[in-house]
Amino acid sequence: MPAPIVVASNRGPIAFVRGADGSVTAKRGAGGLVTALSGALAASGGLWIASAMTDEDRELAGRGRVDVPGDDASAYSLRYLGFDAGLFDRYYNGWTNRVLWFLHHYLWNLPQTPIFGNDTQDAWDAFVAVNRAFAEAMAEEGGRLGPSTAFLVQDYHLSLAPAMLKELRPGARIAHFSHIPFAGPSYLRILPERFRTALLEGLLGADVVGFHTPAWADRFLLSCRLLDGARVNLRRRTVRWHDREVRVRVNPMGLDVRALSEEAARPEVGRAREELRAWKGDRAMLLRVDRAELSKNILRGFIAFDRFLETHAEWRGRVVFLALLNPSREDIPEYAAYVGECVRAAEFVNERWGSASWRPIDARVRDEYAQTLAAYAHYDALLVNPTLDGMNLVAKEGPTLNTRDGALILSETAGAFQELQRWALPVNPFDVDQTAAEIAEALDMPAEERAARRRGLRGAVRRNPPSRWLASQLSDLGLG
Amino acid sequence: MPAPIVVASNRGPIAFVRGADGSVTAKRGAGGLVTALSGALAASGGLWIASAMTDEDRELAGRGRVDVPGDDASAYSLRYLGFDAGLFDRYYNGWTNRVLWFLHHYLWNLPQTPIFGNDTQDAWDAFVAVNRAFAEAMAEEGGRLGPSTAFLVQDYHLSLAPAMLKELRPGARIAHFSHIPFAGPSYLRILPERFRTALLEGLLGADVVGFHTPAWADRFLLSCRLLDGARVNLRRRTVRWHDREVRVRVNPMGLDVRALSEEAARPEVGRAREELRAWKGDRAMLLRVDRAELSKNILRGFIAFDRFLETHAEWRGRVVFLALLNPSREDIPEYAAYVGECVRAAEFVNERWGSASWRPIDARVRDEYAQTLAAYAHYDALLVNPTLDGMNLVAKEGPTLNTRDGALILSETAGAFQELQRWALPVNPFDVDQTAAEIAEALDMPAEERAARRRGLRGAVRRNPPSRWLASQLSDLGLG
Repeated sequence: MPAPIVVASNRGPIAFVRGADGSVTAKRGAGGLVTALSGALAASGGLWIASAMTDEDRELAGRGRVDVPGDDASAYSLRYLGFDAGLFDRYYNGWTNRVLWFLHHYLWNLPQTPIFGNDTQDAWDAFVAVNRAFAEAMAEEGGRLGPSTAFLVQDYHLSLAPAMLKELRPGARIAHFSHIPFAGPSYLRILPERFRTALLEGLLGADVVGFHTPAWADRFLLSCRLLDGARVNLRRRTVRWHDREVRVRVNPMGLDVRALSEEAARPEVGRAREELRAWKGDRAMLLRVDRAELSKNILRGFIAFDRFLETHAEWRGRVVFLALLNPSREDIPEYAAYVGECVRAAEFVNERWGSASWRPIDARVRDEYAQTLAAYAHYDALLVNPTLDGMNLVAKEGPTLNTRDGALILSETAGAFQELQRWALPVNPFDVDQTAAEIAEALDMPAEERAARRRGLRGAVRRNPPSRWLASQLSDLGLG
Repeated sequence: MPAPIVVASNRGPIAFVRGADGSVTAKRGAGGLVTALSGALAASGGLWIASAMTDEDRELAGRGRVDVPGDDASAYSLRYLGFDAGLFDRYYNGWTNRVLWFLHHYLWNLPQTPIFGNDTQDAWDAFVAVNRAFAEAMAEEGGRLGPSTAFLVQDYHLSLAPAMLKELRPGARIAHFSHIPFAGPSYLRILPERFRTALLEGLLGADVVGFHTPAWADRFLLSCRLLDGARVNLRRRTVRWHDREVRVRVNPMGLDVRALSEEAARPEVGRAREELRAWKGDRAMLLRVDRAELSKNILRGFIAFDRFLETHAEWRGRVVFLALLNPSREDIPEYAAYVGECVRAAEFVNERWGSASWRPIDARVRDEYAQTLAAYAHYDALLVNPTLDGMNLVAKEGPTLNTRDGALILSETAGAFQELQRWALPVNPFDVDQTAAEIAEALDMPAEERAARRRGLRGAVRRNPPSRWLASQLSDLGLG
């Protein structure tokens, strides 16, 4: 019998949706995290703890544990934590989205933002309260499951929970994993001292602190040097803290190729593929797929395409740039303003270079997953140029589903660059002329090279299934 | 005979001004750097190399060496380097002001700026050319002065010159000193790799690399870890590089108290003091003195003052906030936009709280040095809240000239914080409610505490004269 596992994450592994007839159905997420954990949770009799995010979730939160559907081998339980709506808003929107996300992605415009004040303290207090609720629920479930339980705490939303849990259960085996980058020590110093100290101490409550790439792990280690009493060993990636040795580990999350391929085989994806094929005709297609997010660098992507058309007249009329932008955090003013600017930049390019028969950029700001999967099949070049990105799954999904030996243009600062760099065309995301040159390089690439790179990308993705991420986490905890 | 000294800096120690009658007169700068070096240059028979920045400078550049006026003991020579205007603009505005300044002060708004491209490469090429001209001039003067010459290379404009000089004269003793902060490794990675590598390699051409505070020195050391082949020892602050050991040293620049006091004794300063005394009446005065600069945090200062008036009704009508903002880099769009926003924020506060007889904020955007010196005398509280600042001389000048035992509110992220923190009221520059609370703390402070803190500040300033900075530099080079 494997050691029991308790997973904690802000968002649960399933979304409950109320149908027109009033009945509630559950849809399991397709991300690597859910795939990695489902079988292990079922086999170990463990459970997943998450925040109730919707009315349906909150309703279920009152009922205790919920079964997560799966075939017999992958069914397990989910426990929702219900929070007061105001508290949850201050924690989620006020702190994790507006402070931690901006912090770890270097998104502030320092002459103007952030503006900290008493409301920042209120948001922080809510963050503490939610983390405490998670720690208490984990401690309670751990008591039921026994002392060998492995606690897998997910992401920046729960940065404080490891230390809180360690205090409640000093013997608990705790791993924390960050799915986003981590701020270096100088940027972290933007936060008032009491917050940054508590954040680092919170994470150091874990026995293993995990990141997708060496760069994020090193930034965390360097940040720990700000803490009085922490002894950081950069070479061995350890932090001596309160008579414990905390290990910092690099463990890139893989893509669930099988689940993605099954999704892509659904009939509506097939229909979308046909529509897109007809829409693009015999033009080449440059694709980007992103949440409409400040760190995705959508604006410079359009500027780079403009420079590409300016310097490569031979491609005018022969290529379309399809930008699928999934709306995100629309209630944050910076996001709304940014999307507006991106759309205006696309219109500017279209007016400058387009004709009656050719619209160079088609920027679609909507949430259509089937269309995304369909578009992956057809691209000749995929532009993934974030300014900073914990991993970036698009860089792995695209090559997995593409059918045209499309090339991948990839930021050096995306987490996925670590695994894929040998076969990608690298760009500094701030350099629009270099990006323009790589668009040309991608579209002009000889067929043989395209095919070789595409094989390399697919191979790299397949070599790192999500199960490996879980196995490494458990092994780092001295289990499995 | 002391070892000869060659100083290199972008801006020279004197400004040449053409009078109405066509004659050119020289005015010596009053900064600590000029004071520190003048006597030593004169005594050693060395010279100062600088860019020709004005038409008058360029005219003099053609004539070879120029005498810098002083009493007999402090006269020395200056050599101007003349550059093509376009080249100088790309180097100075294109690279040092628009790239390096923003980089080392964390001023970019990453979703939108910087946008690198071919023009960035052009600006870099000009930066290389200017640095090479400096290195060649230094090598030439060193040949004349002999092998014991100490080369003191100043600031980020000349980041490449140390390595170029070391290549021309492998035995040369070279110190580089940065008068601004240094970007940490994660922020430095925004620069394309070829530029950041060359910058670090350029500085590592020096034998000693100096900074105002341990924080900037550590950021440089951590950044050197990005370089293949560099072995960084963080504890000893050394970098093993190309079989040499480069020492990184902390050496805060002092204020020339005597020169400042002499300036403040001039009649026009006295007249300005009288005017300001009449203007403020018996109201308390909060003062800020800054270049109108993105890193000075002027906007949050006004927001904090607004919050202060909101939460401290007893001070309404009884305090004025005088903001003396020296126009700066007005041709850079971010600066023009920022100053506009600051002025609007001040107007907003005035409309919200002001009355016919009381205008809460007086923001003066102009260059009037006599008025600045006069204002120092009268403040009850001085707000120095930069988001990031290499040293910040205002924090030292204010307490030196103040006559009212005024309190100093000081950013934790100003270089001067290192020397002055014991006697200042510290603020996180991003926290406007904390800043508001410290404004109240400063204005309500008991007379005894004000006097004790003021004594502490003056003492700290007096304990670090500019001569100490020079002596440490020479001693670090194994001289003097």
